[in-house]
Amino acid sequence: MSRKITVAAAQIGAINRDAPKSETVPRLLALLREAGQKNVKLVVFPEVALTTFFPRHLFTSQEELDKFFEHGEDITQSPDVKPLFDEARSLNIDIVLGYAERTANGTGYNTCVYYSASEGRVLSKYRKIHLPGTKEPFEDPKAINQLEKRYFTPGDLGFKAFRAPGLIPDAAKKATAQSGESTVGKGDPILGMMICNDRRWPEAWRMYSLQGAEILMFGYNTGANMSHLWGSKPMTPEQAKVEALFHSRLVQQANSYMNACFSISSARCGLDDGKYDLIAGSSIVDPEGHVVAEAKTSEDELVVAEIDLGDCRQGKEKTFDFARHRRIETYGLIDKQTGVIEPELL
Amino acid sequence: MSRKITVAAAQIGAINRDAPKSETVPRLLALLREAGQKNVKLVVFPEVALTTFFPRHLFTSQEELDKFFEHGEDITQSPDVKPLFDEARSLNIDIVLGYAERTANGTGYNTCVYYSASEGRVLSKYRKIHLPGTKEPFEDPKAINQLEKRYFTPGDLGFKAFRAPGLIPDAAKKATAQSGESTVGKGDPILGMMICNDRRWPEAWRMYSLQGAEILMFGYNTGANMSHLWGSKPMTPEQAKVEALFHSRLVQQANSYMNACFSISSARCGLDDGKYDLIAGSSIVDPEGHVVAEAKTSEDELVVAEIDLGDCRQGKEKTFDFARHRRIETYGLIDKQTGVIEPELL
Repeated sequence: MSRKITVAAAQIGAINRDAPKSETVPRLLALLREAGQKNVKLVVFPEVALTTFFPRHLFTSQEELDKFFEHGEDITQSPDVKPLFDEARSLNIDIVLGYAERTANGTGYNTCVYYSASEGRVLSKYRKIHLPGTKEPFEDPKAINQLEKRYFTPGDLGFKAFRAPGLIPDAAKKATAQSGESTVGKGDPILGMMICNDRRWPEAWRMYSLQGAEILMFGYNTGANMSHLWGSKPMTPEQAKVEALFHSRLVQQANSYMNACFSISSARCGLDDGKYDLIAGSSIVDPEGHVVAEAKTSEDELVVAEIDLGDCRQGKEKTFDFARHRRIETYGLIDKQTGVIEPELL
Repeated sequence: MSRKITVAAAQIGAINRDAPKSETVPRLLALLREAGQKNVKLVVFPEVALTTFFPRHLFTSQEELDKFFEHGEDITQSPDVKPLFDEARSLNIDIVLGYAERTANGTGYNTCVYYSASEGRVLSKYRKIHLPGTKEPFEDPKAINQLEKRYFTPGDLGFKAFRAPGLIPDAAKKATAQSGESTVGKGDPILGMMICNDRRWPEAWRMYSLQGAEILMFGYNTGANMSHLWGSKPMTPEQAKVEALFHSRLVQQANSYMNACFSISSARCGLDDGKYDLIAGSSIVDPEGHVVAEAKTSEDELVVAEIDLGDCRQGKEKTFDFARHRRIETYGLIDKQTGVIEPELL
């Protein structure tokens, strides 16, 4: 049975600091409708897709900060965002949407949800685990702040893969989960979500591929100038931007290959407030590590590809057949040791 | 204090099935002497560097198979290989050498040793953990066998990083290992060894970077035609060779970046017996994932670069500061689950 599906990254260009969500959501809607015309069944929107990337700013007013967050239990009922989910259901397109989440008890998370059009509900939620940046503003006045550790708490939902019903209409119903039996390539597609910096951490990908993930999806807001300010070698801003895109692509391609899965990455990009430059480069990568589609602009743009989940089989069943090749008795430090230890202490 | 050091990969071209070690070791010696002339302090030789890559053949005679192995406790005293270690000591060059090891109790390992010239002894031994291939020959008569799982046992020494004294003569003595204190960039360089297929498994790299590794070293014998025979898409042999090199480079570059370390890879390459084609591409990659030196041929060739271990700091202290960013409470499956499980079971 064919496991082909048309997917897309919906890249979003500049969003200024004062842009209200009511101005941004129609841009997302326009890309969603374009997806509908192109027979796309799954659209990935960026991280914090509804506002500017506010962790670059230090807010002293809680009220001002809270405007960037979504409040309330159910994002699909949020007045500003509801039209997007309604349209997704109407067009029969599943979507991944990133946003800043404020829970009832006041905790902030960098979150995304997977909305299933066929189910008409949020099927899975992910809260970003690898928060970059700092709690306190940088001392260097030239540095652009990255205050995710200040505004967000590390995600508490783990890396949970999930099956998405309806994506491949005639997919056999869920493969029977018998202990030890391979579920590769059977039943509804297995998906997983990450957010931005997670993609640089091989543990995140591996947690998902250990659950058989066939497509990993992530949005990102990646500054174009980090290497320029932080790197050990002098770089022009232009070189630093090339370097930042190189790193983003490198980890996406290699981890897609090493985990034998497709990946869809979706950028918030462009020049926010006319001065904060973000890399673009939204892309769809196959399980052999090749880019099959990529953004050509730094603006709102839909990046589309038809992919065949059967292409995961070469990796999952041969080169990276986990059951035959992984040696878990030698990996003990990975989930026991956070920071670096002296070699002699192992 | 400068942490610069000149290192090299000593790539070795074709070795035919009937070539005795006494014919091959002088080729390694020639590259070692070239390294001496170029002020190199560390030379990495390939996996199974003393013979042809014999796991492609099915042997029915144990005696014939055993000719490819090194026997005895101390490789440095092996008559065929002793001249290489003697020369390394005389030239004050540390070397990594891969070979097939037969222990006193008859177990076979795919092994490499790190020989310290300043210490005049083997400082560390590594036995390949991720053995590819199969125990039984392939049924497809066109497929080239990969019988590592038949001839070798998975390594039992783990991924142990180690400090190499003498590599940087004026390095401060070993950093005091106090609990929780960062040892980044202090004392003698921290090194780690892998072999061939290990490089495709992010767990191997991570085990070493959790011990602060600044240079990872591996040799390889990588067939040029695996994708041609196994891949899901039709490929010519020429395309398959490009693909195999692409994958090898991709994992080396990405894992060097994600683990903020240099890496040195050393190929056995060329056309063994005039028909078994191996990829070349020996290279030295920096902690930002860039290739700083690479082989130009598929023959015996020394690939040299001066590297500055200080370049690891950007990664180890900022982007990939493990102590601040890793979330080990979310990585539990990695060392507990060998094969794939159903998503719902997590």
